[in-house]
Amino acid sequence: MNALKGNILYVEPNGDLIIHPNSFLHYDENGILGIFDNALNCEEIEDWGNRLILPSFADMHLHAPQYTMLGMGLDLPLLDWLKTYTFPAEARFKDPEFARPIYRKLALELIGNGTTKISMFSSLHFESTLVLMEEMEKAGLVGFVGKVNMDRNGSEELHESTEESIENTKKWILSCDKFKHIKPILTPRFTPSCTDELMGWLGEVARQTKLPIQSHLSENEAEVQTVKNLHPDCSQYWQTYQKYGLWNERTLMAHCVQSSDDELLAIKKSGVTVVHCPSSNINLFSGFAQVRHMLDLGVKVVLGSDIAGGNHLCMFDNIASAIRVSKARTIIEGPKTQFLTTEEAFFLATGASSSFFGEELPFHQGAPLHAIVLDDALLPNTKELSLKERFQRAIYRRQKDAIMAVYGNNKRLK
Amino acid sequence: MNALKGNILYVEPNGDLIIHPNSFLHYDENGILGIFDNALNCEEIEDWGNRLILPSFADMHLHAPQYTMLGMGLDLPLLDWLKTYTFPAEARFKDPEFARPIYRKLALELIGNGTTKISMFSSLHFESTLVLMEEMEKAGLVGFVGKVNMDRNGSEELHESTEESIENTKKWILSCDKFKHIKPILTPRFTPSCTDELMGWLGEVARQTKLPIQSHLSENEAEVQTVKNLHPDCSQYWQTYQKYGLWNERTLMAHCVQSSDDELLAIKKSGVTVVHCPSSNINLFSGFAQVRHMLDLGVKVVLGSDIAGGNHLCMFDNIASAIRVSKARTIIEGPKTQFLTTEEAFFLATGASSSFFGEELPFHQGAPLHAIVLDDALLPNTKELSLKERFQRAIYRRQKDAIMAVYGNNKRLK
Repeated sequence: MNALKGNILYVEPNGDLIIHPNSFLHYDENGILGIFDNALNCEEIEDWGNRLILPSFADMHLHAPQYTMLGMGLDLPLLDWLKTYTFPAEARFKDPEFARPIYRKLALELIGNGTTKISMFSSLHFESTLVLMEEMEKAGLVGFVGKVNMDRNGSEELHESTEESIENTKKWILSCDKFKHIKPILTPRFTPSCTDELMGWLGEVARQTKLPIQSHLSENEAEVQTVKNLHPDCSQYWQTYQKYGLWNERTLMAHCVQSSDDELLAIKKSGVTVVHCPSSNINLFSGFAQVRHMLDLGVKVVLGSDIAGGNHLCMFDNIASAIRVSKARTIIEGPKTQFLTTEEAFFLATGASSSFFGEELPFHQGAPLHAIVLDDALLPNTKELSLKERFQRAIYRRQKDAIMAVYGNNKRLK
Repeated sequence: MNALKGNILYVEPNGDLIIHPNSFLHYDENGILGIFDNALNCEEIEDWGNRLILPSFADMHLHAPQYTMLGMGLDLPLLDWLKTYTFPAEARFKDPEFARPIYRKLALELIGNGTTKISMFSSLHFESTLVLMEEMEKAGLVGFVGKVNMDRNGSEELHESTEESIENTKKWILSCDKFKHIKPILTPRFTPSCTDELMGWLGEVARQTKLPIQSHLSENEAEVQTVKNLHPDCSQYWQTYQKYGLWNERTLMAHCVQSSDDELLAIKKSGVTVVHCPSSNINLFSGFAQVRHMLDLGVKVVLGSDIAGGNHLCMFDNIASAIRVSKARTIIEGPKTQFLTTEEAFFLATGASSSFFGEELPFHQGAPLHAIVLDDALLPNTKELSLKERFQRAIYRRQKDAIMAVYGNNKRLK
């Protein structure tokens, strides 16, 4: 049994910040045993002094190959951006040996930023997808990686036939048994990218294997209109996933910026989880997702960096972005729409994804240890700060070299 | 004569990115001599290889004492935020020895982030204001610092009488002769903070000394209403500065989020410069300043971090924020409102303030050398990038330790 000593803070689902000043977080190879005021029976104690010990982050929507185009082309309209940057970048990942050093660097940068849990889109290439899973697992991350399915509306260089998509997805899934902590997730890119036949086949796989599913939903107006034209039988976008069996409590849907109340209620009823991607909401001027309204309705919401539509892997940035997007709605709708508190936005990036992982909440007994240690000793003060103030400042300040240590799945990763 | 060698890039007032690949920026102690393809007659050459050499940043609105509360209290309504954080923090700067190490740290952090030109609010304390000027000048920054005037609507701990304000402002101005690169700027906090008598006196000083002026204008609705009540004779907020002689081509006005077209036209006509503070626009949910519209009208616009209403000193963040605020307006108003390009937003943080400083545009002959060197060699690629792509990525990516060197006023500062 080991212990981390320091100021231990985490946020509960109701947005309450729980504070254990100068305490001991006990854990072993099976996870967290509790938070105590002593280190009785602990073999190894890491004493972090007056620093902050917080849950590490879960980034629940990002496109791994787009790591190479982070921050480029954001002046272009969405379609030009896809054609000029996204599709050519993803096409390069046909070569798994090209992919490996980039995915290794991505894993390191994620951990360096305090992210230890992920749900990722790979490219359509099954071999490079396995490389991505290997590199994520080797680095100590946990979560889900999906080979992308896209048998229509790609580009000449980035395309698979329906048969290729099915065959390669089969091979990919069969190769995933070797991974312990990185699991496969079915990943139809989004409705416009997948024929009905492919969607039907993926739905059947989902039924048989109970694999989780991730895709995009109602990101921008043009996309919603395209989906309407492709599926005139579906009055709403979400039904194009539901009718193929790709819509259940194991489903992650990114964005939902344009979702109507009917769609949000369908999301809630079926237990689908919305991945809010605030940075890309604005970078791609999709709109401002109505996260407060989703939470009020009881919809499950988690956070995603959505690189490279989002431009920061750092989840401190994405938490602050989520607050800003919610404040944008307050500006537009008036004070009746309460913006997200710092604590609520932090929860979206930490405990909110625990149920999707089938785990206890962060820092609760039985949860695996996923934590970061933050140093704020060098920041200037005019008074002694409360731990709540130090927590808020750590989120917004994102100071250089603040992250002293990162723990993922009961091991120190940095 | 010295030279910097590398890829030299800057943006012109029309938003064009000017690129000199693998070139030599010649300069001496009087400023820039030109950009050439050789280093003839240069004594010292710093070879930055394939790195990017860009103009450094001007942060044209920030509150130095609020550096100590950066990132705190942003869940509070404006008035509570002022009472709980801002006023108590500023009050601590009564003690110049308390102020000195904090202002020294601020100067270092500004330079570390590539900011070499500033226009700053101090607190109301004239001795600490002189300390602030000393520390900024010693670190190598150039620009303006103002002792704040506020003889009403402060707090018990942060208040000066009209007489004190006048006396201390006199003493402060008389002590400023010793500074070479940091100059005094008249700084009525904003109309609600200053009695008519004080405003009148400041206007008279402005007339006699030709000192520049900085203040706040039309930030949020409640403030605009307060000003209306205080000055029933003024139909618009800007007139409360104009009627006292605090409104001319040497005036910086922060925010202007709520400004009507009439106010914007008055700004244009009188040559006042708007300081756009995009991060604080959203953090304090003031609204989304209509920068595109201002530029279309011919209004001069520069950029400010507005710490601690803004939460980042780093101007890369504030440039990206400016783009996001302009995209927020595109989301709301539709594509007829063109968002700022990366180049346009970069110009706001660099060349846009040159005329206020009475200088040539950055990297033009005769301008003082203010530059940063950016390394992007470790970022992953799928193809060879153009210098324009590398420029855009450098802005959005803000990668750790990217800034290799900083030059201010013809000297290397980092």
